[in-house]
Amino acid sequence: MISSTANQQVRRVAELAKKARVRREEGLYVVEGIRMCRELMPEQIRALYVSESFLASKEHRAFLSGLRGAAWEPVSDQVMKVMADTQTPQGIVALAEQAHYTLPDILGQPGDAHLLLLETIQDPGNLGTILRAGEGAGVTGIVMDKDTVDIYNPKVIRSTMGSIFRVPFVYVEDLAGACAQLKREQIPILAAHLQGELSYDQADLSGPFAFLIGNEARGLREETAALADVLVRIPMEGKVESLNAGVAAAILMFEAARQRRG
Amino acid sequence: MISSTANQQVRRVAELAKKARVRREEGLYVVEGIRMCRELMPEQIRALYVSESFLASKEHRAFLSGLRGAAWEPVSDQVMKVMADTQTPQGIVALAEQAHYTLPDILGQPGDAHLLLLETIQDPGNLGTILRAGEGAGVTGIVMDKDTVDIYNPKVIRSTMGSIFRVPFVYVEDLAGACAQLKREQIPILAAHLQGELSYDQADLSGPFAFLIGNEARGLREETAALADVLVRIPMEGKVESLNAGVAAAILMFEAARQRRG
Repeated sequence: MISSTANQQVRRVAELAKKARVRREEGLYVVEGIRMCRELMPEQIRALYVSESFLASKEHRAFLSGLRGAAWEPVSDQVMKVMADTQTPQGIVALAEQAHYTLPDILGQPGDAHLLLLETIQDPGNLGTILRAGEGAGVTGIVMDKDTVDIYNPKVIRSTMGSIFRVPFVYVEDLAGACAQLKREQIPILAAHLQGELSYDQADLSGPFAFLIGNEARGLREETAALADVLVRIPMEGKVESLNAGVAAAILMFEAARQRRG
Repeated sequence: MISSTANQQVRRVAELAKKARVRREEGLYVVEGIRMCRELMPEQIRALYVSESFLASKEHRAFLSGLRGAAWEPVSDQVMKVMADTQTPQGIVALAEQAHYTLPDILGQPGDAHLLLLETIQDPGNLGTILRAGEGAGVTGIVMDKDTVDIYNPKVIRSTMGSIFRVPFVYVEDLAGACAQLKREQIPILAAHLQGELSYDQADLSGPFAFLIGNEARGLREETAALADVLVRIPMEGKVESLNAGVAAAILMFEAARQRRG
């Protein structure tokens, strides 16, 4: 059992939880909590740490013995506190291999595309919320520019509530290149924009399309908005100038889902 | 100029920023940043503190001299850091008087009601997002149970982006009493519920109504859901069980706005 917080494995997990650069270099990330760990396939798990308190539960031990092949290491409750990113850790932390989707993976069947293109989303909670709502709305994939927060940030993972394991995503060097690819596949690009000429619910969202969503504070850069085929706006009452990026994305995606159902 | 962080006024502001109980007892709250302070009426301001750096700007001094009657107190940059709730304070903090709306204020013209009833929303960011999106969707008021996070929490205020000054709200001892009042005014009550029989977009939201939204983790209590005239659900793809409370509220409110426009 690992009982020293100075242990090298403990320090490695804590570093992977904190640093996007280290996660990228090692191709790994940290998954915390039983609910999230259940969604991992055994072959994705590189290491698994469980606390003494976690092992006290019969149900937890049954879960571990179901994970044939994936070895796990007991750690003291004190060590778990250092490994976990949460205030009250659930007692289980996995090191998992990052998924690798490509843009063609995500485009899939272009006729079905229901994509989000994210520019420089910075808040981990927003990105997580967008993934969770995106899965709920039937989004087929998410494309992010390289200045968007790391999707493997523990706060993002937590707020996806598991959607990170199910929605394909990719980081691209620049959104312009991705948009050119979409145009070749004849997938129309819509941008949420305060100066949009068309109300979002007047746009036909029943076919394939991709939505561009901009940074929380600055919105889309003008060069990026110019890549869109149509600018749409969400009509607003009162003195509200814009919506939270996650909320705006959800309103657009669920309007598309509504049109597709109808 | 106040230059000691041990100064009693400094400690009072910090305490008001931190403790809901103290805010309630004094009927005051803390407003931070020039953008938010601009939205206050001079008669709402009980005290105003500005940092040395803030005073260096001509535009800032013009703002202060426009506030006839509201006296302000210069503080050192170090003191401002203690008073402010943010990492990089903007240099201006006000103590303002809390607004006092009643349930009848909020019901207003029952024929126009577009209300939200919130049960035990705990995350300040969620409550702020709900206010901001609510104003954008034309919500006429927000009713909260007493276990909902304090709306005067600095994190809530920040994430409302000013909607806190424009959307009427009230805390009630219990939602059942508020619902009885709504029923007397013939305002239909809808609840967002996973077992809803009706998809939210199939409900007629063009007339008056109130939406019940439940706690982030537990959803609505069964007793509360039973107060609704109709349970509606947001149809979901994938394995998503529920949406973030702020996102769910926004989807419902903007569907109502869409129906009202159309």
